Amino acid sequence: MKQLLLAASALALTAAAPTPVPTIPAPAIVAALRDDALANDHYAWDIVEGLTTEVGQRLAATEAEARARDWAVKRLTAMGFANVHVEPYAMPVFQRGAESAEIVPPFPQKLVLTALGNSGATPPQGVIAEVVAFDSIDALKAAPDEAVRGKIVFVDHHMTANQDGSGYGQFGQPRRAGPTIAGHKGALAIVVRSAGTDHHRYGHTGAQSLGPGVTSIPAGALSVPDAEQLMRILARGKPVTMHLTLTPKYLGDGPSGNVVAEVPGRDPSLPAVLVGGHLDSWDLGTGAIDDGAGVAIATAAAKRIMDAGRPLRTIRIVWFGAEEPGLIGANAYQKGHTDDRYFAVAESDEGADRVWKIDTKLGAEHQAEADALFAATAPLGIVKGKTDSASGSDIEVMLNVGTPGVTLHQDATRYFDIHHTPDDTLDKIDAAQLRQNVATWTTMLAVLSGGIAEPKRRIPR
Amino acid sequence: MKQLLLAASALALTAAAPTPVPTIPAPAIVAALRDDALANDHYAWDIVEGLTTEVGQRLAATEAEARARDWAVKRLTAMGFANVHVEPYAMPVFQRGAESAEIVPPFPQKLVLTALGNSGATPPQGVIAEVVAFDSIDALKAAPDEAVRGKIVFVDHHMTANQDGSGYGQFGQPRRAGPTIAGHKGALAIVVRSAGTDHHRYGHTGAQSLGPGVTSIPAGALSVPDAEQLMRILARGKPVTMHLTLTPKYLGDGPSGNVVAEVPGRDPSLPAVLVGGHLDSWDLGTGAIDDGAGVAIATAAAKRIMDAGRPLRTIRIVWFGAEEPGLIGANAYQKGHTDDRYFAVAESDEGADRVWKIDTKLGAEHQAEADALFAATAPLGIVKGKTDSASGSDIEVMLNVGTPGVTLHQDATRYFDIHHTPDDTLDKIDAAQLRQNVATWTTMLAVLSGGIAEPKRRIPR
Repeated sequence: MKQLLLAASALALTAAAPTPVPTIPAPAIVAALRDDALANDHYAWDIVEGLTTEVGQRLAATEAEARARDWAVKRLTAMGFANVHVEPYAMPVFQRGAESAEIVPPFPQKLVLTALGNSGATPPQGVIAEVVAFDSIDALKAAPDEAVRGKIVFVDHHMTANQDGSGYGQFGQPRRAGPTIAGHKGALAIVVRSAGTDHHRYGHTGAQSLGPGVTSIPAGALSVPDAEQLMRILARGKPVTMHLTLTPKYLGDGPSGNVVAEVPGRDPSLPAVLVGGHLDSWDLGTGAIDDGAGVAIATAAAKRIMDAGRPLRTIRIVWFGAEEPGLIGANAYQKGHTDDRYFAVAESDEGADRVWKIDTKLGAEHQAEADALFAATAPLGIVKGKTDSASGSDIEVMLNVGTPGVTLHQDATRYFDIHHTPDDTLDKIDAAQLRQNVATWTTMLAVLSGGIAEPKRRIPR
Repeated sequence: MKQLLLAASALALTAAAPTPVPTIPAPAIVAALRDDALANDHYAWDIVEGLTTEVGQRLAATEAEARARDWAVKRLTAMGFANVHVEPYAMPVFQRGAESAEIVPPFPQKLVLTALGNSGATPPQGVIAEVVAFDSIDALKAAPDEAVRGKIVFVDHHMTANQDGSGYGQFGQPRRAGPTIAGHKGALAIVVRSAGTDHHRYGHTGAQSLGPGVTSIPAGALSVPDAEQLMRILARGKPVTMHLTLTPKYLGDGPSGNVVAEVPGRDPSLPAVLVGGHLDSWDLGTGAIDDGAGVAIATAAAKRIMDAGRPLRTIRIVWFGAEEPGLIGANAYQKGHTDDRYFAVAESDEGADRVWKIDTKLGAEHQAEADALFAATAPLGIVKGKTDSASGSDIEVMLNVGTPGVTLHQDATRYFDIHHTPDDTLDKIDAAQLRQNVATWTTMLAVLSGGIAEPKRRIPR
């Protein structure tokens, strides 16, 4: 049987070479799959509801992330996917410690903050020092060392919400680069205004971009209201002293892993379509929008294709581990799959709000697939983006070496209100917008997986 | 000089008795004061910005509330009010301790909660017990003791936002009465769904209604997302165990006090108009909407009248202490002022959003004042309410003994999103709506204080 299939596959390839068989399904079939997902999908909700309720937070390399992998294997198997397995690796375990910030003179009061990933630790009793404020990362860079040495640096900024999430690059810089810059100048510690667009009293945690061998000074993110409060206090013109305590720890290596599942294609010799999100989350919320929703959306779409029949190309689903601390799962995956080739890779990691734009980078020879995708998603209100560009978080390492890809951009207007805070919980997900995502991803997979053979029923449910 | 004034005052009274001098100012004067406040007031913002920035939280009877009284005396004096002083009393000091709740089986995870005021304490290591859930306070009341004994009671409910804030009475009952009821039935501890309408991860603290001699079992409020999470976990049908730690303390008596200031009336023999709010706050936020805004609004309005000239009746401003733990400042005030008579009392303690309705209870002989007030506030979009009803928090003890009063109802749609949480910070205040409040209160004082003599300028600023 196996031999026969391989022979048939080889024959198909030989026969197809001169005159490619059209592999884009009829628009009516794609539309039916799309509309059914939009009206009826429950797979995505069930996954994100289950994962956030039955596991909760899933910090990379902790016992909670391990429970999440177990949950994932069980769920993916129960859903009928093939080749469900974990690809393990090891990495340092982060443990959040005490976190407090208090203004001493001139106006004694507590401020709310949270430690950044990779933060150094203060002594258990904390540090007390004068606060020196900068209104941007550039202002900190320009400051002479003696203005900063021995002090607690505060970097403010003015991030506001954008639909395309574009503020995060620029205004995330104080978090990513601030500790390194302040540390080089001799600062005792740093607190940054959170890279967030809300006005709630949560620090937004997140990883730093530490160079090789660089360690961070104690580094925290003030909630936006507390950063504004600190600016008001500083504006009174009196010296401001802060008592800062941050005692995170790294506990040596622990196990992490990527969870993989597949919808086997009719022709296993063809490059697969890889879709995914990341299973790990920060430890503060339950990782609903970041990224329970992402793994749920990608998986629900793959399941809907599988329910409808058998795609030409294999669909590989990856729930990456350890995205948050710096794409550790993605790098491990890339290392373990150097010979794999993909027709396209795509990741859902921008929340649970609707897709509004699609970019593709499928190569000039696959413009027909890009055009079919744009046409089939226009009824969902989605605009055509670029055809020479794709991006993502975990998939970036693959895109960087020339792998084709697709990016389904989500509306990020609300995303950075919630991102990396305790507020990342299930109630923030709008079920209708979640279904729009599943409809978009189902459409994408229907087009890019090369056509579904032997549909099990006319209108899949 | 003093004798002369008394004689003049007695003469005025004698002369006025048969034919009362009309004491309602001309509509044009009232309108000018109103419109100027709406366009230009900065007094209220300056007070609430200053108090929340320079003092922050002001928990009753703590050192922070004492600093707030000092701040208040300094500010009220600097604004030019007369008779600025503190009326002290003593009361127990509450100190928040450790607060944590963790689900052990079936799905290990932390939930966010905060201790209620008057909560009993668990041992330092907490208590571990099965959770028994009720969907209302009535369901808890109806439960047999053996269903509850030795367990951790959870009371859910379905509070939603209303413009008139009316959900707080009914859905605040699990917080107010739940600990007593559960304690009588032998429960080990209680957690309630917060009396809040938001979906952020803060417990809403607040006082209980404890009968005389009753002490509370350990009692906390889960954030709304965490209450929903607990309901989802319970819905899986497996026994749920919680590890609950709440270690609040009462530290014996500490000093608290009411801060009083006045705009002296032209006729001190007449009953005064009392306006105020409360100076204390819970310890979680900075007490911006509860009730920094309230003292700011009432005080700004009195200042605007004082800027315009001299009212007939004295305006007394009270910044009550210790409202949150149970009207302790209000009761002390009432006890110290048993002989005082008021033309009307009014309190601002419903946030910083616009006034939408006015109720009055001035007595039938003052219908003209009520009518003038309704007419002068209609251009602010305010609807006429009752003319035989007034309410308030600190002023309730005065209203209960027949004191006339006025209630300027604020739009409470957003109020219980923020109320009694860390999110009660300055950024939640809409400066335009704050000015609308000041305009309404200025109008009310212009009408009820009996007419302003010798206006200092035509359009006050």
